[in-house]
Amino acid sequence: MKLEPRVSIITIAVDDLAVMAGFYEALGYPRHQGITDRVAFFQLGGIILGLYERESAEEETGIPFGDAPSRVYLAYNTRSEAEVDAVLALAEQAGGRIVRPAGRAFWGGWYGYFADPEGHLWEVAHNPGFPIDADGNISLPPE
Amino acid sequence: MKLEPRVSIITIAVDDLAVMAGFYEALGYPRHQGITDRVAFFQLGGIILGLYERESAEEETGIPFGDAPSRVYLAYNTRSEAEVDAVLALAEQAGGRIVRPAGRAFWGGWYGYFADPEGHLWEVAHNPGFPIDADGNISLPPE
Repeated sequence: MKLEPRVSIITIAVDDLAVMAGFYEALGYPRHQGITDRVAFFQLGGIILGLYERESAEEETGIPFGDAPSRVYLAYNTRSEAEVDAVLALAEQAGGRIVRPAGRAFWGGWYGYFADPEGHLWEVAHNPGFPIDADGNISLPPE
Repeated sequence: MKLEPRVSIITIAVDDLAVMAGFYEALGYPRHQGITDRVAFFQLGGIILGLYERESAEEETGIPFGDAPSRVYLAYNTRSEAEVDAVLALAEQAGGRIVRPAGRAFWGGWYGYFADPEGHLWEVAHNPGFPIDADGNISLPPE
């Protein structure tokens, strides 16, 4: 068998669920109100973002997590260059930290980085080569 | 402004791109053949999985990553309980390691964990409470 080309859930093992949930809500992600005990869930199109108390997650896996910043990191691609700057400012207002201010990429786009309250990195990028449709789906260019 | 409820790219900062790309290809993820220099890209529905050489990623962000396992971790939800077992076996054949064999979850489903070749964790779960449609989109339950 093979996997279908999809992923279901991105989970962040968090030290402070209230702070992290508050941060992602302040960015605009919609927190699911039905399941809130020791977790926070956000529906992001066809996938789910989950925040889960780290100690509980470590009990499940039996393995202590490494420190932030996580080697698995996320990107939010924007619909314009100006939006990159706006998202970075929003992240800072929400309690994050701008790690790399917006600037020109060697591949031609405009991008920056922020860190969430626990130090996990997000790239914010405008990349016309990876188009985003009206529903927010992003595509690699033709091969 | 607020973010749209979406994420664009999941990137893993990797130490050995060939090994990691080979692992994810062996799972069945389709590697994009057009952009292969120091990166591997996979189209996963409306999002992209990227593997990026860690030293290059650290040059971009200016911050050294923490060690594996990453606190940002991923889940592949299956369409049946048997599929959980099959995916764990596939991951092991592909060069990963079964961290937690499939078993019953307190929330009623069937799940296990594997680690990829660089130690990042994947949950593999059958959760009827989070339905998956024909296109592979997963949904939180009604609130």
